[in-house]
Amino acid sequence: KIAELADRFFQGGKGDLKGKTILVTAGPTRERIDPVRFISNDSSGKMGYAIAEEAVKKGANVILVSGPVTIQPPNGAMVIDVESAEEMYHAILSNFDKADIVIKSAAVSDYRPKTSYEYKVKKKPGDETIELERTKDILKELGTLKTHQVLIGFAAETNNLEEYARKKLLEKNVDLIVANNVKTKGAGFGSETNIVTLFRRDGSGESLPIMSKHEVAKRILREAFILAEEAGK
Amino acid sequence: KIAELADRFFQGGKGDLKGKTILVTAGPTRERIDPVRFISNDSSGKMGYAIAEEAVKKGANVILVSGPVTIQPPNGAMVIDVESAEEMYHAILSNFDKADIVIKSAAVSDYRPKTSYEYKVKKKPGDETIELERTKDILKELGTLKTHQVLIGFAAETNNLEEYARKKLLEKNVDLIVANNVKTKGAGFGSETNIVTLFRRDGSGESLPIMSKHEVAKRILREAFILAEEAGK
Repeated sequence: KIAELADRFFQGGKGDLKGKTILVTAGPTRERIDPVRFISNDSSGKMGYAIAEEAVKKGANVILVSGPVTIQPPNGAMVIDVESAEEMYHAILSNFDKADIVIKSAAVSDYRPKTSYEYKVKKKPGDETIELERTKDILKELGTLKTHQVLIGFAAETNNLEEYARKKLLEKNVDLIVANNVKTKGAGFGSETNIVTLFRRDGSGESLPIMSKHEVAKRILREAFILAEEAGK
Repeated sequence: KIAELADRFFQGGKGDLKGKTILVTAGPTRERIDPVRFISNDSSGKMGYAIAEEAVKKGANVILVSGPVTIQPPNGAMVIDVESAEEMYHAILSNFDKADIVIKSAAVSDYRPKTSYEYKVKKKPGDETIELERTKDILKELGTLKTHQVLIGFAAETNNLEEYARKKLLEKNVDLIVANNVKTKGAGFGSETNIVTLFRRDGSGESLPIMSKHEVAKRILREAFILAEEAGK
């Protein structure tokens, strides 16, 4: 049945995701230390933007919640620009109810400075410390809140990839984890390609070869399509 | 005499900086927390790239030391890409002797994490702290080392602009400080325009109106030209 559905998805062309609302998150977040300094990460947004573009091509209504990136969003997606993890949280939560599929490819900061200064902090002689607090665990919250939504998360790791990915899948009530080792050449942030392993709820893990991010995007959307069909949505 | 030199610079066209080697720095630096996280700032590199491009047009040999940015470097400049303050320090110092004019428009991090982890640090419940240490004060070191070089620094501030700029000019033995309030609309990081005040060693301060970063670049190069001529270079 899965193979049949998947075939239908690939053959079906443009209309396969018609009527479906897909919420995609992309890019990094920035957590302000002061007006000029921040903590961020290397996410380029390319993976999430590729997913959004391929989903538009398949006829979906696409809501793209994007951290600060320098690439152009696909035509036809509704784009919500955010900077911080807190802003991303609110943008996602306020669009969660209307989503059929949520694909969280953004690299959201786990921590933010406890204090964010209004003025540029002047340097002083000697060492400093930044006190950090945890940001909201958005994926975990969506896993708790979800009713009909297919929820797909990412795990960008540098070590213990499978262990961390499987843990995330179960602990956060996610339907699929797309895992990649960002230290591997061809799989890192900013690359045009990716090398991912798909971890599913049934315990299966599928390692894909190196592919363009657009090819990976299509594979992820195929998985999302199957999950949505299986759930009778 | 200054007015005469300046006129010559503007009328002279392409060859005015011929034979001069100009070292320009641009963009932010990134200070690694781990392979995926870093501390950085909002510098887009546009101001420095505009200076490099205008200097190439005036016939200078341009060495552009650039932090991570997403804009294209001008044709004809020798580009040295760096990521961290430490890498920027080495790139500048190893090219300082051959430079006639040094224009430090990069926004170099003042602090870096004391520890930079080889693997992505996993989040834990509760708060965290990052221990920071000072990076090298490149401008100050150049001010100490300089022999024949004209040294131009930037001051991007959010408050007490003139006070901080004049302090920097004197304490770091700089020939000119280009100061801007990055909180002002039209003067911030990423903007196509800038609103700067030039602070000179003679105590004068000249506030320029809002201009494109290319126009500001030409003004800075005119000042650099005058300073170099006055010093008999």
